[in-house]
Amino acid sequence: MAVAPASPRSGPADAPLGIICGGGAFPFAVAASAVRDGRSVVLFPLRGYADAAAVARSGLQAEWLGLGAVGAAIAGLRRHGCRQVVLLGYVFRPRILSLRPDWTMLRVLPRFIAALRGGDDHLLSRIGAFFEEEGFQLVGAHEIAPDLLLPAGTLGRVAMREADAEDARIGLALVRALGPFDVGQGVVVAARHVQAVEAAEGTDLMLERCASLRASGRVRLPQRTGVLVKAPKPGQDRRVDLPSIGLRTVEHAAAAGLAGIAVEAGGVMAVEAEVMIRAADEKGLFVVGLAE
Amino acid sequence: MAVAPASPRSGPADAPLGIICGGGAFPFAVAASAVRDGRSVVLFPLRGYADAAAVARSGLQAEWLGLGAVGAAIAGLRRHGCRQVVLLGYVFRPRILSLRPDWTMLRVLPRFIAALRGGDDHLLSRIGAFFEEEGFQLVGAHEIAPDLLLPAGTLGRVAMREADAEDARIGLALVRALGPFDVGQGVVVAARHVQAVEAAEGTDLMLERCASLRASGRVRLPQRTGVLVKAPKPGQDRRVDLPSIGLRTVEHAAAAGLAGIAVEAGGVMAVEAEVMIRAADEKGLFVVGLAE
Repeated sequence: MAVAPASPRSGPADAPLGIICGGGAFPFAVAASAVRDGRSVVLFPLRGYADAAAVARSGLQAEWLGLGAVGAAIAGLRRHGCRQVVLLGYVFRPRILSLRPDWTMLRVLPRFIAALRGGDDHLLSRIGAFFEEEGFQLVGAHEIAPDLLLPAGTLGRVAMREADAEDARIGLALVRALGPFDVGQGVVVAARHVQAVEAAEGTDLMLERCASLRASGRVRLPQRTGVLVKAPKPGQDRRVDLPSIGLRTVEHAAAAGLAGIAVEAGGVMAVEAEVMIRAADEKGLFVVGLAE
Repeated sequence: MAVAPASPRSGPADAPLGIICGGGAFPFAVAASAVRDGRSVVLFPLRGYADAAAVARSGLQAEWLGLGAVGAAIAGLRRHGCRQVVLLGYVFRPRILSLRPDWTMLRVLPRFIAALRGGDDHLLSRIGAFFEEEGFQLVGAHEIAPDLLLPAGTLGRVAMREADAEDARIGLALVRALGPFDVGQGVVVAARHVQAVEAAEGTDLMLERCASLRASGRVRLPQRTGVLVKAPKPGQDRRVDLPSIGLRTVEHAAAAGLAGIAVEAGGVMAVEAEVMIRAADEKGLFVVGLAE
């Protein structure tokens, strides 16, 4: 089927946006941002991952998918006339045997298995490439909802002290050094010492670890010392898996005794930035976007 | 007091060796190795850290020290005629106010406080420099007990598969990339994916995390997948804080579902290598020394 060349009035962004939804609040925040921009949106929630109550609350059209139902996803996107698709929310690395592949999935399964053996970037990039081969344009959350990207500067009422700024600089350099290894996008640096590096456990569990290292006396530091630093991996395909923070991140950072949170400006998203920053203000934590 | 030039018959290595003992079994393994070499040894166990039962079992002369009793340590080393000193075992980063400094410590306290604010390497190197200024020679466990260093090759009955060797290569490269940040010397790589990076929590807690990530389904991998890699940080002062593994490391690695343990040959010590390797054999894990 030949596709007509895009014109300003009938480009892919004029068709409904398909959002394939994993777990968490993030897909719905992006959907709401797109709707505010006047875009029509169709949700494709993944059974076992997407939040059914949030799907219902969104009031948006939704077509539930099983994990591995690639053919159904393609057919659903076509039926709704979607030309752009965005993959959002977490999907834990599936055990291959737990997938319920449909015929389309079976056709591409060897490529997926190869991807599943590699790092996350690898997996998501290959899934993206697959959608593009099927004629869809894979777009990133930051393109659909740039208002969710945290900007540069002190975002709340609390500012970094010089010692915090030094911890933040070390953390940002560390995340960048980890880039080639496809390791998680978060680290905690306190008093110039690396306290924790995030890998498969995710940011929340890393911060819980920091809290218990301090509670046990294994790490001994005054309250409000140390910085959670989050930044995208250098060279990361930003259409998939941009790091994000939210209210829960602030709560965990406060419980871990940190002084605040520093993110790469323009590279990290927040679902409800205002709520999050108000909570950080109340707890005396800074939230800062680090410019280059 | 002028010191006579060292002669082959009265060099620092002919005088008793002073071992300042923190926690764990490591100081006693090094002491036993030195005694086997015909060396006389005086233990300086740190109250609150050193294992009192192991001190008693060792049958060696022992002078207990409080943390911060630097003057007492110097005086004790001089009284026993020690000219070489080795710092062994763990001492969690102390809260400065919990130190009970003696007069010598008070004199050097500003330097220690500066060191405590930095990374571990920093702290230990400064302590080492301090002993050297006082006329002692700081030596490393690997110099006193080279028999405790794990050599290159397959050390038990189980060999790495090609996939394990690839995980081990990635892990070793990652530890080296982390070097400038003074981060812990252990990582877990499974199916080419970085599962965990060790920082302040230490190897055992990192492996417990890997076990629970798999138990919860957050990481889904077949049993016996993945490698614990340990190596010294590049540029690390090897006289302090060489990484080590032991029986408990094997037990934790098995519980985490890993295929085995890979260490940098000649850069990682084991307290009871035979016991550890027998346990690894029984559990079907490899233990491998990676040559350059």
